[in-house]
Amino acid sequence: MRVTGGFWAGLLEVNANATLRHCRDWMERLGWIANFDRVAAGTTAVGERPGWQFSDSEVYKLLEALAWEHARSGDVGADAAFEELAARVVAAQDDDGYLNTCYGHAGQPARYTDLSSGHELYCTGHLLQAAVARIRTTTGPSGPAGPPAAEGPSTVADPLVAAAIRAADHVCREFGPGAREAVCGHPEIEVGLAELGRALGEPRYTAQAALFVERRGHGTLAPIALLGPQYFQDDVPVRDADAWRGHAVRALYLAAAAVDVAVDTGDDELLAAVERQWTRSVERRTHLTGGMGSRHQDEGFGDDWELPADRAYCETCAGIASVMVSWRLLLATDDVRYADLVERTLYNVVATSPRSDGRAFFYANPLQQRTPGGDLLPDQVNPRAEGGVRAPWFDVSCCPTNVARTLASWTSYTATVEGDVVTLAQYAAGETRLALDDGGVLGLRVTTRYPHDGYVHTEITEAPDRPVTLRLRVPSWADGATVTAPRAAGAGHGDPHTVHPGWTEVRRTFAPGDVVALDLPTAPRLTWPDPRVDALRGTVAVERGPLVLCAESHDLPHGADLADLRLDPSVPPEAHADGARVRARISTPTPAPAGGPPFLGTPPVPRPDTAAGDTTDVVLIPYHRWAERGPAAMRVFLPVG
Amino acid sequence: MRVTGGFWAGLLEVNANATLRHCRDWMERLGWIANFDRVAAGTTAVGERPGWQFSDSEVYKLLEALAWEHARSGDVGADAAFEELAARVVAAQDDDGYLNTCYGHAGQPARYTDLSSGHELYCTGHLLQAAVARIRTTTGPSGPAGPPAAEGPSTVADPLVAAAIRAADHVCREFGPGAREAVCGHPEIEVGLAELGRALGEPRYTAQAALFVERRGHGTLAPIALLGPQYFQDDVPVRDADAWRGHAVRALYLAAAAVDVAVDTGDDELLAAVERQWTRSVERRTHLTGGMGSRHQDEGFGDDWELPADRAYCETCAGIASVMVSWRLLLATDDVRYADLVERTLYNVVATSPRSDGRAFFYANPLQQRTPGGDLLPDQVNPRAEGGVRAPWFDVSCCPTNVARTLASWTSYTATVEGDVVTLAQYAAGETRLALDDGGVLGLRVTTRYPHDGYVHTEITEAPDRPVTLRLRVPSWADGATVTAPRAAGAGHGDPHTVHPGWTEVRRTFAPGDVVALDLPTAPRLTWPDPRVDALRGTVAVERGPLVLCAESHDLPHGADLADLRLDPSVPPEAHADGARVRARISTPTPAPAGGPPFLGTPPVPRPDTAAGDTTDVVLIPYHRWAERGPAAMRVFLPVG
Repeated sequence: MRVTGGFWAGLLEVNANATLRHCRDWMERLGWIANFDRVAAGTTAVGERPGWQFSDSEVYKLLEALAWEHARSGDVGADAAFEELAARVVAAQDDDGYLNTCYGHAGQPARYTDLSSGHELYCTGHLLQAAVARIRTTTGPSGPAGPPAAEGPSTVADPLVAAAIRAADHVCREFGPGAREAVCGHPEIEVGLAELGRALGEPRYTAQAALFVERRGHGTLAPIALLGPQYFQDDVPVRDADAWRGHAVRALYLAAAAVDVAVDTGDDELLAAVERQWTRSVERRTHLTGGMGSRHQDEGFGDDWELPADRAYCETCAGIASVMVSWRLLLATDDVRYADLVERTLYNVVATSPRSDGRAFFYANPLQQRTPGGDLLPDQVNPRAEGGVRAPWFDVSCCPTNVARTLASWTSYTATVEGDVVTLAQYAAGETRLALDDGGVLGLRVTTRYPHDGYVHTEITEAPDRPVTLRLRVPSWADGATVTAPRAAGAGHGDPHTVHPGWTEVRRTFAPGDVVALDLPTAPRLTWPDPRVDALRGTVAVERGPLVLCAESHDLPHGADLADLRLDPSVPPEAHADGARVRARISTPTPAPAGGPPFLGTPPVPRPDTAAGDTTDVVLIPYHRWAERGPAAMRVFLPVG
Repeated sequence: MRVTGGFWAGLLEVNANATLRHCRDWMERLGWIANFDRVAAGTTAVGERPGWQFSDSEVYKLLEALAWEHARSGDVGADAAFEELAARVVAAQDDDGYLNTCYGHAGQPARYTDLSSGHELYCTGHLLQAAVARIRTTTGPSGPAGPPAAEGPSTVADPLVAAAIRAADHVCREFGPGAREAVCGHPEIEVGLAELGRALGEPRYTAQAALFVERRGHGTLAPIALLGPQYFQDDVPVRDADAWRGHAVRALYLAAAAVDVAVDTGDDELLAAVERQWTRSVERRTHLTGGMGSRHQDEGFGDDWELPADRAYCETCAGIASVMVSWRLLLATDDVRYADLVERTLYNVVATSPRSDGRAFFYANPLQQRTPGGDLLPDQVNPRAEGGVRAPWFDVSCCPTNVARTLASWTSYTATVEGDVVTLAQYAAGETRLALDDGGVLGLRVTTRYPHDGYVHTEITEAPDRPVTLRLRVPSWADGATVTAPRAAGAGHGDPHTVHPGWTEVRRTFAPGDVVALDLPTAPRLTWPDPRVDALRGTVAVERGPLVLCAESHDLPHGADLADLRLDPSVPPEAHADGARVRARISTPTPAPAGGPPFLGTPPVPRPDTAAGDTTDVVLIPYHRWAERGPAAMRVFLPVG
């Protein structure tokens, strides 16, 4: 899909024009790229290496982003940047295929001596994913989940791909059957091997990925300080677990790999295990934004129903990893709920992270900020980008490059083909020509202002002379959607008919110029938390289309405190700009008695002078754009009453 | 006060008979005590030392507990244990007064090379507090806040006291004016020096404590990984801060020292600063139990109004440190609110930690447990004693020895004397003879079943032949309390008269046999969270006297889930055993639609078959006894409706 305008086109352009360069400049400045030069030159030394032990992975994620970006836009600058950076990376590879700038050279700890924290295999996994992006954008069909490309001279001639193959072979030798019976503290090698195996048609890599997936959950990893085996999913075997737990990014990268392995080895039990985990975790451990990870402590999942707004961690990378898992499950099972969660997460976690200029990012994405945060200077590193201010870079800076690779490959999530069925899973204005599995091409031109409104106009630009199916997703929130389809090829529109959430299909012999129009209702709507979510009792959120909305202190009447806002749910919210307008009052409850904890002998009663009549209208904005107008208090869930 | 029966007598006896020995056995078994022997023998070696870098402090807290226990009960076994353990500690002291088993010897890092994490001065602070307990229980009036004891041969002849003096002198040399301009990452040396300075009348120690207090807040400590300067209160100078923040135990040990320094140097500004911090932090950042610390992430305070029940950290040690601060502020200002918070925290945090057999402890004290935790085997170490099960020992095992020293010195919190005013600040059955500042003795015998009921009967057993004042605390919750006092010395009772929360005074020329009877209403009462506490909206708690109550899954009707309990606040709770009985219903709301996060398009409505009439009575138990009957779900705050 070539995206030609609208919501995602803007984000993708900023990513291309600002974020990729931003990431490269920061890693150059901090010496994370030069770490490869030092290994290549044999000038590593004790205690002098900048960056965490996993900083190589950021360079690999940038490489992956550059590869996708070159394919997306044809930008030769991105290609040149890829080749220049890849050359520096490849130069650091040891003769036996090991490639890491933190271990195994003069003055460094020995290889694989700290599997719990060392992240060596994690880094290798990202190297493999970068190589897969290169393979898919130079020799095979593009897209992260396309069918295997033929292995051939053009692929292996690419220096980074060749390096990745050497690294993967090294991993298979060192960790294969009969060698080290171990896993890495941070899953990622699994998905890297599985993707590379699929891209090259190399079953040894798939088998090694499967071996890593099976080995996990048996408590072989040494604990890290106070973090137990659950932190890295080493508590329960993948196929036995009922829910995601521990560090969210770890849990989700592992789940993504498990789906790949299950599909490529025909392991239905393993696939069912991940589906079971998805169901339980999404229904009980997932925030309204799609954000995953309720706890700051271990960047981890919480218990069922533990979904605090203020301390929601919802790491950007966990959102990205959730999209990776749901996308794979969608392809494996065709269940529309996975596409719905992909959309929710893309609009409300992934799109929330980058600042509109693409040069600062949220790491954590809480759903409430009580007091406006401070401003961060442009060159400041932030531990976690909390406090309601996006930061240019982080001490652990996994999110910016993860956003970059996700946006650069975003179009892959829009459409799929199976047989003669073409599916639009995500909506954006754009054009595509899709090769049908059984021959022929379906060309589509999508025109839409989605999510600003819900009208998606799809024109057929090219079609075979036989029936094919165009399948559209009606999101779970879109009760009352309608579809208008051509009566027959070239015979003009039929009448709109109501369709229900789920897939809706139009099967026709299409002619160029035919239009399939989907109209999704995007009036703002109230969304209530399940009563078991203790932290959100007595509150309601407002959504509009795929967007979660929020109240920002900027939009309150002068002098009002966001903590005192009480929404009147009996007045339906109205559309306003890209958000909504709601009826609320500013409550001023009886102050608590001083001198003790904030608890009262009688139920808090609003003061008479702020009773029911004293209402005001408050504008809500899309959550993904909060904190763009300077430091602000913010909340998604508004108390009612 | 010699406690003769009732609530605290039980805890104090278990502490004496089980916990002290339990702590000693664990530290012997783990080699934390033998660390001293190895330093003394010069057999330290690289990488062989068991325990964290701060494990010495646990040995010192046990010494402190043994000293108090000997004074409390006269147990010669405690005294012998103290002397034996002290001898092993003292033998490890270097010639220049430095005493630490982790740094500064063969195979160890050099002294003071890691002030952020090393805890060397922190350990020394606990050594000094142990010495102060020894001084106060051998040569001066007992009690943690008694007036200075005369320095003299008997004091300095004590090996541990002599070692502490050498250590304090060493600290003054190394960190005094003109020497290292530094502080320790974990405050504690400040309070140790201040206490020792007061106990010995040595102003150099007080001055060094003051210097450490002043130095903090200027960002001199190197950050620990992702933890910024706020973590160790190095972000804002003590006298400028408005609230407690960062690691709770650190913040509170520092505040305790600041009060000591302020009092002993006449620094009213510093005292006012701590009072300001107390007010803000108690009114907005303190849980109903008195527990402090809302976050697991850095064991720290949260934002104002951030008081989640499920993820409340409320570390036992933070509760103990809060008692230390409030007790000092009470003595410095005579404001009754400090004594109220001491009581709330003692009953609901300190008393909650130890299991009834004194051999397992809570580290974190959350106010909600959604699913019953697992059983822990007797010899298992637990990272944080989460999951609703007390653990015998911890990886970071600060809480057991802190409970031990607090219970061993608990009686010190009961009574104070100033001039001819005797104050009973905490209530327990017991006897005491108090030397009035201006001569004479007031003897008291308190008979009470408090907190089981609120009747406190105080008989005068000895009194001077002139008017003195007996002052009693009427807790903030005790509206409708009455006092009955003698008409005149030996002239029989007057009529009960109503007294209001705060101090109530009876000034008489008392005769032996006179009785002052205080009657505090302890009917169970509903307590509502301030509406700004988002996490508790729509819930209510039940308290009884000083006790916070909770619902445990053990007490629910068969098959009912604690998450579905809805309390009917229109029916007043009734007293039941030591807790209460409340009217509730088991709600079964419409299940959320499957396939997405747990949010609904319409407000959740109870199913018709579980509407208003379908109610049940549920028994609530004191929070401090939860999880004593096996793994359980628990909650303090119950949803209403």
